[in-house]
Amino acid sequence: MTVVRSAAHVQARTEEIRRLLDRHRVLETFAVRQQTSKRDLLEQMQRRENLAALQKHVRGLHPADLAAILESLPPDDRLIVWRQLPRRDAGLTLVEVSTDLREWIVGALERQELIDALAELDADDLSYLSESLPDDVLTALSERLHARDRSWVVDTRRYAEDSVGRLMSPDVISVREDQHVREAIETLRARADLPDQTDRLFVVDARNVLRGSMPFHLLLRTEPGTRLGDVMLVDIAAFTPDEPASHAAKAFERYDLVSAPVVDDLGKLVGRVTIDAVLDYVHVLSDQEALARAGLRGAEDLFAPVAESFRNRWPWLCLNLITAFVASRVIGLFEGTISRVVALAALMPIVASLGGNTGNQTVALVARALALDQLHGSRLRLARKEVTVSIVNGALWGGVLGLLSIAVYHNVALGLVMMAAVILNLLVAALAGVMVPLLLHRIGRDPAYGSSVMLTFITDGMGFLLFLGLARLVL
Amino acid sequence: MTVVRSAAHVQARTEEIRRLLDRHRVLETFAVRQQTSKRDLLEQMQRRENLAALQKHVRGLHPADLAAILESLPPDDRLIVWRQLPRRDAGLTLVEVSTDLREWIVGALERQELIDALAELDADDLSYLSESLPDDVLTALSERLHARDRSWVVDTRRYAEDSVGRLMSPDVISVREDQHVREAIETLRARADLPDQTDRLFVVDARNVLRGSMPFHLLLRTEPGTRLGDVMLVDIAAFTPDEPASHAAKAFERYDLVSAPVVDDLGKLVGRVTIDAVLDYVHVLSDQEALARAGLRGAEDLFAPVAESFRNRWPWLCLNLITAFVASRVIGLFEGTISRVVALAALMPIVASLGGNTGNQTVALVARALALDQLHGSRLRLARKEVTVSIVNGALWGGVLGLLSIAVYHNVALGLVMMAAVILNLLVAALAGVMVPLLLHRIGRDPAYGSSVMLTFITDGMGFLLFLGLARLVL
Repeated sequence: MTVVRSAAHVQARTEEIRRLLDRHRVLETFAVRQQTSKRDLLEQMQRRENLAALQKHVRGLHPADLAAILESLPPDDRLIVWRQLPRRDAGLTLVEVSTDLREWIVGALERQELIDALAELDADDLSYLSESLPDDVLTALSERLHARDRSWVVDTRRYAEDSVGRLMSPDVISVREDQHVREAIETLRARADLPDQTDRLFVVDARNVLRGSMPFHLLLRTEPGTRLGDVMLVDIAAFTPDEPASHAAKAFERYDLVSAPVVDDLGKLVGRVTIDAVLDYVHVLSDQEALARAGLRGAEDLFAPVAESFRNRWPWLCLNLITAFVASRVIGLFEGTISRVVALAALMPIVASLGGNTGNQTVALVARALALDQLHGSRLRLARKEVTVSIVNGALWGGVLGLLSIAVYHNVALGLVMMAAVILNLLVAALAGVMVPLLLHRIGRDPAYGSSVMLTFITDGMGFLLFLGLARLVL
Repeated sequence: MTVVRSAAHVQARTEEIRRLLDRHRVLETFAVRQQTSKRDLLEQMQRRENLAALQKHVRGLHPADLAAILESLPPDDRLIVWRQLPRRDAGLTLVEVSTDLREWIVGALERQELIDALAELDADDLSYLSESLPDDVLTALSERLHARDRSWVVDTRRYAEDSVGRLMSPDVISVREDQHVREAIETLRARADLPDQTDRLFVVDARNVLRGSMPFHLLLRTEPGTRLGDVMLVDIAAFTPDEPASHAAKAFERYDLVSAPVVDDLGKLVGRVTIDAVLDYVHVLSDQEALARAGLRGAEDLFAPVAESFRNRWPWLCLNLITAFVASRVIGLFEGTISRVVALAALMPIVASLGGNTGNQTVALVARALALDQLHGSRLRLARKEVTVSIVNGALWGGVLGLLSIAVYHNVALGLVMMAAVILNLLVAALAGVMVPLLLHRIGRDPAYGSSVMLTFITDGMGFLLFLGLARLVL
């Protein structure tokens, strides 16, 4: 059995594993160098002892801890450690690691080694892994399952990514509404094992249509002779497999759920969603968002090959190059003015940069409000407020920069141009900061991602145009 | 009883509430205008009817839904709706709303109105609210609690913010290890009500030291005559009140927990942490992080007064102004060169921008690895890889930009300077992208926040310096 240990214990084990891996590497290098020496036997013994020690240290760790340890190791060491795991842990650890690492391990293994490791996984875990497995391996593994579980693996693959269907699991225990508390408890006792996160039974009618739920605490506290239909909870949140997973995530958070039923169009119980699946989903999503905001498409492996890193990063840089080049052409329009007053070249990035920063503050607030569904019929009010804030900020920072410019360049007209450009560009930034996320939301895109690029493009271009345009008119 | 309804139902109710509020506003305006007319009575009746309809629509909604509705309303309407809530719901809704909105409502209420609304909250909710309440209100409310609960409200305030002590609740049901399953079930039955998220009893010895836990599913499936000490689970994750809340969050996610015990230094059971508190904590934290990345310190209210918005935003803009001004002085050093080759002014922002973008990609990866604790002894390896990727990117984009520059300005030397500057600045970006987050982590700061400003400062300044410096040497 795998058990939960304290963080300090896991940390100590990790250190020990790292030490043994270092030793393993030294012994290997030594062996290669002195291949023909007579000390071979002794070395082989040392290597075997070392691996045995490694095996001892990975044993009994929770698969989630093992996954975290694997992720933190350099590529070569990962496979060495993974191969020391007991078969069942090896399979469960493969469920816990990130998609990237999983695909790397799957790619590095022989077909039979992979099948052996995954042989003990259940239908739910297999359907979760199915994307990363070669078809022939998946077929071989499915054949070992019961018919019902086999069809589960096939069925869940049909649902869209990010749908409730992909989060749900088949491990659902249902009882009929005309059964009694006593029978429900007997149903529970008859099962060899209960799936994790089981906090309630689902109550259905004769046609398997969901009628309510019976939490364990209610089972424990109700007279055994009571009919389930009379005591069950009826107002429970239920989902359909085609619903977006984000619906389920919102409901779990808002109503503090642990598990919830999934029903088909006829209201029949088909599965359930549990809090751990929801948490994983939310976590992977926010992780991807954080990386996407920096222009990375997936959770790039820290030790990914250079070619892969390059593939992950170039589209963002290409987009960046295009927008920067366009902004540069805006500056190009004013080369005559710049050659007359060369100080403009030094000051213009400040106007663009302040605009970008204030605009992104507005974007962050609006994107958050959209994600929390807080913007109904109050768009105008919001735009008015953001414009007011930007005028206050513009007057202040524009004034400061105007005075700084006068102090450095002894040119009052230049200072006034600077001030006016900052005020106007902050106004542009406030309007764009409200409108860009709303626009992206309207066309069905997540405003948390794309807004920042578009906004910076606008505030850079407009910043240069306003500042240099005013300068051409005035100076 | 408050019940969980479908999202569509909540949405429909929200629309109806908005419609009634609009009508309320119209009637109010009307009343003010025609204060002396004889239609007074009719109008008053209409207003009352309208408020009664509003009351009907907010009734029976889950406090979490009510909180979401309040957040989405403009300030004036929030208080109108909140005042229509049944007393108990009004208190619970105040627990669910964001800190900003809570403080606003608390500030807008009379002392007695506030005490009435909060009178039915338990010790756990009160201690959660304690930061936002005036001391005299808190004292008045505490006096209504039992002695044990009263000391709870005082005690939990002593723990540091972001500690397990702030997440834990006193609602813990414990049984003795020498009791039997039957007695444990009787203990449960004797309680009028069970706290939410109760999935297990905690098993203690005669001195209240935690020995293990007894999940409800185990209670249901074990013979009533069995001694608890013989069947309880012993390897359970436990926390101390002084631990950082992030430890608990990590453990809940890693081990799929629903509730976990909190023990003091002697191992005595003092409370428990539940998944809903952990989820709220994680959610608030990631929300704050997303805003902080854009330079906002708190979850600024969408409809906050301009003065408050300004206070929230100016420090970031001030920092931005300082860094932009320093970068501008770097440009100022090369005014002679720029006035000779004015094309430099147009091209230099591209060099800085590409550097900032590649650097931030590296920062995002390194910050993520640090957050997941994946960077042990592999820093050099990582730096080597990032440098290699940056050289590949630099050669490609530097080449493209070099050719573009030659095409636009018909100046081969300028193109070569552009290429060299891009390659070198991307190299700087890769090194800074690895080192800046590591440095912030070393000095105990969260690298997810500050890295981006520092990095952009470095890549801007170095971008200008490299490009203009090379230009001065070559052109």
